[in-house]
Amino acid sequence: MEHPFTNRIAACQKRLETADAAVVILSPGPNLTYLAGIEESPSERHFLYIVPADGTPQMVAPTMYEAELEEAPIGDFRCWGDGDDPVAILDTVLAEYGVTDVTDDSTILLDDRMWTVFAQDVRRIRPDATYGLASSVVGPLRITKDSVERDALRKAGELADRVSMRLRERGDEIIGMTEAKLADEIDRLLTVEDGLEPSFDSIVAAGPNGARPHHHPGAKRIEAGDPVVLDFGAFVPADLEAGSARYPGDQTRTIVFDGEPPGEYETVHETVRAAQEAAVEHAEPGVTAASVDRIARDIIEEAGYGDAFVHRTGHGVGLEVHEPPYIVEGNETTLEPGMVFSVEPGIYLEGEFGVRLEDLVLVTDDGVERLNESPMRWRA
Amino acid sequence: MEHPFTNRIAACQKRLETADAAVVILSPGPNLTYLAGIEESPSERHFLYIVPADGTPQMVAPTMYEAELEEAPIGDFRCWGDGDDPVAILDTVLAEYGVTDVTDDSTILLDDRMWTVFAQDVRRIRPDATYGLASSVVGPLRITKDSVERDALRKAGELADRVSMRLRERGDEIIGMTEAKLADEIDRLLTVEDGLEPSFDSIVAAGPNGARPHHHPGAKRIEAGDPVVLDFGAFVPADLEAGSARYPGDQTRTIVFDGEPPGEYETVHETVRAAQEAAVEHAEPGVTAASVDRIARDIIEEAGYGDAFVHRTGHGVGLEVHEPPYIVEGNETTLEPGMVFSVEPGIYLEGEFGVRLEDLVLVTDDGVERLNESPMRWRA
Repeated sequence: MEHPFTNRIAACQKRLETADAAVVILSPGPNLTYLAGIEESPSERHFLYIVPADGTPQMVAPTMYEAELEEAPIGDFRCWGDGDDPVAILDTVLAEYGVTDVTDDSTILLDDRMWTVFAQDVRRIRPDATYGLASSVVGPLRITKDSVERDALRKAGELADRVSMRLRERGDEIIGMTEAKLADEIDRLLTVEDGLEPSFDSIVAAGPNGARPHHHPGAKRIEAGDPVVLDFGAFVPADLEAGSARYPGDQTRTIVFDGEPPGEYETVHETVRAAQEAAVEHAEPGVTAASVDRIARDIIEEAGYGDAFVHRTGHGVGLEVHEPPYIVEGNETTLEPGMVFSVEPGIYLEGEFGVRLEDLVLVTDDGVERLNESPMRWRA
Repeated sequence: MEHPFTNRIAACQKRLETADAAVVILSPGPNLTYLAGIEESPSERHFLYIVPADGTPQMVAPTMYEAELEEAPIGDFRCWGDGDDPVAILDTVLAEYGVTDVTDDSTILLDDRMWTVFAQDVRRIRPDATYGLASSVVGPLRITKDSVERDALRKAGELADRVSMRLRERGDEIIGMTEAKLADEIDRLLTVEDGLEPSFDSIVAAGPNGARPHHHPGAKRIEAGDPVVLDFGAFVPADLEAGSARYPGDQTRTIVFDGEPPGEYETVHETVRAAQEAAVEHAEPGVTAASVDRIARDIIEEAGYGDAFVHRTGHGVGLEVHEPPYIVEGNETTLEPGMVFSVEPGIYLEGEFGVRLEDLVLVTDDGVERLNESPMRWRA
């Protein structure tokens, strides 16, 4: 059990000072969860967390949250009721931090996910401020995972693996099920295995539907010989003494549950698998994110499928299922110990089938630790 | 089966022209679903829909969506791949609409829910534009529901009613269950009754937990005599020929499944019920949203519980579970036929219990149509 929020706030304030920024204003979302252990969905109500470079952070939130906020590790808070103007309260809080009025030229960082309707409110009361993004100070903290986060991500990886293996065991029982039904079954298994909820809408894409990377599972029945792309994971809770946070799993396997797949399938599956392996082997501290993408892409291009690999090789995973570092052409970010990301090359043949294989990896001092261990083979 | 998107786009363009705005830029969310029938979650990828005052709208989206966009009722689209700069594409599209360059002083409306990270991109390429919110043109369209929307909301209301009645039938079987278990059971019933997914995290708040309006169901077991606040609903699909959209149910009952509640409970329940009835009776075209709130609040204040009614009386419901019109002090919006909102007064006694009763209503030509018909009584 740990309570990492005090450390994280201190690190954020140090970065604000270095960046010469007066405050960062967060709204419900992963930055707020990271710094204050609060998991809240964005809504039309003003729910803002103001962290100054120097001083105690304050939350401005609706009255109905008062009892909950008293128990949260957040610093101070001010609640507003239906008759109050939350923007006036924000105005007061900013002034107390020395971000004074409309002629102030302080730098204010806004949550990258703050809805424009709220950002416009801030701009209205501080039109002469310079505006930047919260990720410029919170991003460098979040990109490497502390021990609480690593443990949660390991647990989420193991959970996805268990579900993956339970699906393989079904073998030819899967034939005849619709994609939608199998997706429901995956969601059920993720819960049975103690997931809080699916990390995202589980993808089940059979036969030609596999050629669409983000296919929504539908009424198509899985037939013998259909390659089935299965992309899923579930959130697990972090082990925290105060506050809360959840971390997702995310893995992909492409499986033929029974029968013989299209003639080209085995070659394509082997190519994707080789690309996935090589990229994982290559990843270590000091190499760039782009180079990991390049390794996977080279193998797929050499096999003649370059045009059929239509997305980046991977994305970071933490409080968000997609977050930095992105494993993509042009991203010169250097890998560091503690980074966690997916390695998921794919080949998509329109009208025929698709193959994607994905594991999460954690960068260690001299390579990576795989967070998924379940088999990659294409037969169930 | 209808295809309302052509009409909606035309109405939006007319309002852009009247407002002297050059374009509105939407991101994934309810405004985009409303105008283009696209249901997509916000993500870190640039996914923008640009509707000019005059001309054909264009979508700028990641390549992986290409096949899906070809089938969507959206006008034109341009996809960007991993090597492309989506902001450069946006720049080109804006220029084609006559929103030319950094010295342009056109008015650009941004989606209220657009993440700040994307809004900053737009401001970077058009720093001299005037910025406003998409809701200024799309809001007045969305606030009154067309026939497709009304039918979907009626269906969602009936679904929530069926689940509500199935819960009552359980009676004393509920005693001993944890809140979390009952919440899971509600989610299961919502699916069994053909809901796509819960409209929001179902609220089950037993005994003293009922005093927290947004309580998360937990490990507390429901005991005989506990008033249990049950607030839930599910999304149902709209009946559309092209594109897709879903509409939520949202209703609340407070039920004692067995045993005798605290002495004050019956009076409190009657007070909330009277407030709910009176507010529904009062609602009709021409009265203000604030007056509906006032009617409910007066009754609760007169009964001596004014301080215990800690939230607004209601919220609009449409593509969003919470949207205008808000039934709240200070909102002088006049009710019009086609508006749909909740009427949900509550009394919250810290440390003791809470009562909230909620139905959705649709404003008709001379009053309202209730979208919920299940019993309000406090005994199962």
